[in-house]
Amino acid sequence: MRRQDVSVVDVDWYPPADGDPNLNEILKTINFDQNLLKRINNANKMVIERVKNANPQVVDIISAEEALELPIHTILHSGPPIEWDRMCGPQKRAVLGAIQFEGWADDEDGAIKLLKKEKITLLPCHQYDAVGPMTGIISPSMPVLVTKNEPYGNYGFSTFNEGRGNTLWFGICDMGTLDRLKWIRDTLGPAMKAAVKIHGPINVFEIVEQGIQMGDECHARHVASTALLLKRLIPAMIESGVSRKTVSSVTRFMDENSHFFLNFTLAAVKVTMDSAHNVPYSTIVTAMSRNGVDFMLRVAGLGDNWLVSPVSAMENAVYFTGFSVENAAGDIGDSAIIETCGLGGMAIGSAPSAVGFVGGTFSDAKAAIQKLDTITTARHNRFRMPGMDSRNTPLCIDLRRVVETRITPFITTGVLHETSRTVGQIGTGVADAPVTLFDQALIALVEKWGIKTQSSRVMQTIHIETEKVA
Amino acid sequence: MRRQDVSVVDVDWYPPADGDPNLNEILKTINFDQNLLKRINNANKMVIERVKNANPQVVDIISAEEALELPIHTILHSGPPIEWDRMCGPQKRAVLGAIQFEGWADDEDGAIKLLKKEKITLLPCHQYDAVGPMTGIISPSMPVLVTKNEPYGNYGFSTFNEGRGNTLWFGICDMGTLDRLKWIRDTLGPAMKAAVKIHGPINVFEIVEQGIQMGDECHARHVASTALLLKRLIPAMIESGVSRKTVSSVTRFMDENSHFFLNFTLAAVKVTMDSAHNVPYSTIVTAMSRNGVDFMLRVAGLGDNWLVSPVSAMENAVYFTGFSVENAAGDIGDSAIIETCGLGGMAIGSAPSAVGFVGGTFSDAKAAIQKLDTITTARHNRFRMPGMDSRNTPLCIDLRRVVETRITPFITTGVLHETSRTVGQIGTGVADAPVTLFDQALIALVEKWGIKTQSSRVMQTIHIETEKVA
Repeated sequence: MRRQDVSVVDVDWYPPADGDPNLNEILKTINFDQNLLKRINNANKMVIERVKNANPQVVDIISAEEALELPIHTILHSGPPIEWDRMCGPQKRAVLGAIQFEGWADDEDGAIKLLKKEKITLLPCHQYDAVGPMTGIISPSMPVLVTKNEPYGNYGFSTFNEGRGNTLWFGICDMGTLDRLKWIRDTLGPAMKAAVKIHGPINVFEIVEQGIQMGDECHARHVASTALLLKRLIPAMIESGVSRKTVSSVTRFMDENSHFFLNFTLAAVKVTMDSAHNVPYSTIVTAMSRNGVDFMLRVAGLGDNWLVSPVSAMENAVYFTGFSVENAAGDIGDSAIIETCGLGGMAIGSAPSAVGFVGGTFSDAKAAIQKLDTITTARHNRFRMPGMDSRNTPLCIDLRRVVETRITPFITTGVLHETSRTVGQIGTGVADAPVTLFDQALIALVEKWGIKTQSSRVMQTIHIETEKVA
Repeated sequence: MRRQDVSVVDVDWYPPADGDPNLNEILKTINFDQNLLKRINNANKMVIERVKNANPQVVDIISAEEALELPIHTILHSGPPIEWDRMCGPQKRAVLGAIQFEGWADDEDGAIKLLKKEKITLLPCHQYDAVGPMTGIISPSMPVLVTKNEPYGNYGFSTFNEGRGNTLWFGICDMGTLDRLKWIRDTLGPAMKAAVKIHGPINVFEIVEQGIQMGDECHARHVASTALLLKRLIPAMIESGVSRKTVSSVTRFMDENSHFFLNFTLAAVKVTMDSAHNVPYSTIVTAMSRNGVDFMLRVAGLGDNWLVSPVSAMENAVYFTGFSVENAAGDIGDSAIIETCGLGGMAIGSAPSAVGFVGGTFSDAKAAIQKLDTITTARHNRFRMPGMDSRNTPLCIDLRRVVETRITPFITTGVLHETSRTVGQIGTGVADAPVTLFDQALIALVEKWGIKTQSSRVMQTIHIETEKVA
């Protein structure tokens, strides 16, 4: 038309939902039904309020067995339920490590035999109000952070972070791994328990709030928050009577492990999002989680049905020298729940050292936040990004906006080696949540509301109960 | 002219040096004498190189008496030399406190009598290669951080920071102040000495470098750097055999005193700028310092002659509720040397929580950095501002540019109460260095080079020797 001298105007417009007629019909139905819209908005308001009111506190440290009341020979893992044979490499290796750590088998062959004979029960952490980063393995004798959400009374759990290197969460198990796990169980756990007893409950978001003023986005980076926890807790640990040698080894471990506070954030976000879950008519995402093979999505209004779809390895990660996507396991970890709570990718503007994740400059980080603003419905009341004029982080991902704009939340995460028994982490980057999962969730929601759709998609859902909050 | 329809162009131009004919003549002389210009540029290049190469390490903790070889009954203070009668309120009260702390008098009256009888020698910290924040009092039995500049071998000293509240550095002395000083002398000092012995020298700029990635600008804010020091040093302190009770009290003190690392930065910057001082023909500022009454300025090419002029109280500070400039003592402290080394005001873009100092938004901070770029000649090689795409901080203030543009470096600092015996700090803000001092320094410099000037200014200089560096 321009060539024919017709006057044209360029617009920055994309067809909503990529022009998919079924999704467009659904979006139109929602937008034109004033009653429905009111219900959705009220529900979302309640979800946002609960997320903002949450106040997670670490109140104790006890064994997973005691805290979660695990059935015998049970091992928890990150992501959706999955059988042994379908697990990705790193998660398999971590399971084998946990079996040996528990003393159920003397070596890897023995552990594999138990699994083949189905003597071991593998279940997702989320089923037990727990969360684990990367492979996310929790076995009965591991100590866990008992995290209570003060205003709502619900509990959540996570293990202690093992640090870098030859660790279960990175899918490695050697003698050093087992020794460290024993040290965590016999030394770190009891010392932290004693310190918490003297100190009183640890207010997790108080530390997160300060941490994101100091360069953390509280998913991929926890340098500041770990230091803040350490300086807060060590005096109490000393006063509790823990031995000099133990305090020294714990302090060194925390000094050298800048991910230490990750598991605190993780359990805190879990109790927060659990308390905001199960609000009929809400379109807000309350969890994302993956196991290297599948990705699952939880929505406040969908109850205990989670949507599931396959994940792939991260094409665009920053791979360490010598590694590429060819070596990578699929995207993995329960930690993606962090992004549903205004942290991680949602707080990328707080963490200049993590801007490499989204393009390399601080301007890229700011542009990323602008995009995330279009798919979220609120801003977090306490989490502010200092380099962005203390702007509050985008909060509460709304399914409808993701479906319409095709912008998906991204997750600041690490990449694990699929096959190596010694390498562990091979890169970092942002993982994108699969957009079709949001489509499926919206379809499931409107069908739940009695709206008929022409969906021809095969929708896979799984049932995992969330602790009910009053 | 515009009204008469003459075509005009608006330009953003101000007459150099406010149009002062004498200063303009000087600037012209410098700019058109190619030989002189070459000498200046070479000299400045050497200064910049030395500042960048500096590597300050805290190597030991010993008493000020031992470290500085102080004459009997000597007390050091911040800023230029000043007699007792002319001292500002907070510095007077701090001197009286130090006399009691040393046991030279039992009470304030006794201390005043000693001063009236001239039994006490008051000298500036800078005369003893030392630096003190705010009132900057150093008395013989106080422990000091022995800071060595690795590549150049020169030493500098500062006390331990007392924290907020009823402290000598804020011009308050009560029983609590004296008890804390005794605890610092008898408990903190020896514990830190033991820790440093096990840990080895503390690399100060390594911590500063990380701290400014985490929200510190390392003058008004040291939250992150204090935490980093703590987590680094505590394991060593425990292993050194220091008692459980002491480690606990030291950790608590550092946890509650976010200024703790200030004195480390201060001594580190002092040895850095001392090693860059005494370079003939250099126009770079190597120190700024004030005592609440006078401000003094040191320039690399002016040798041991410092320029002095009066300071006033800070009109534009952010005063705590109930206080105003009426209550304020004059601008005070040796800590303004920090701004000569690419930190403090020069790193304001690193410290979003301190942007209130320069207008309130991060954009104001970025604009401030742009202005500072016009009066500095380099950027620091190690100090980078994360929120400004990791841009390096402005470094090395050039007299010539300050005189020409009338832009002066600003100092992120606190304000003390002039008369109250209990209040201490009453505000925070940026202090501007008096521009006439830079004019006087430039006149003194060119006169040293044998260039005649029509200066009618009364130039006040004082002589304080700087440790010579090979």
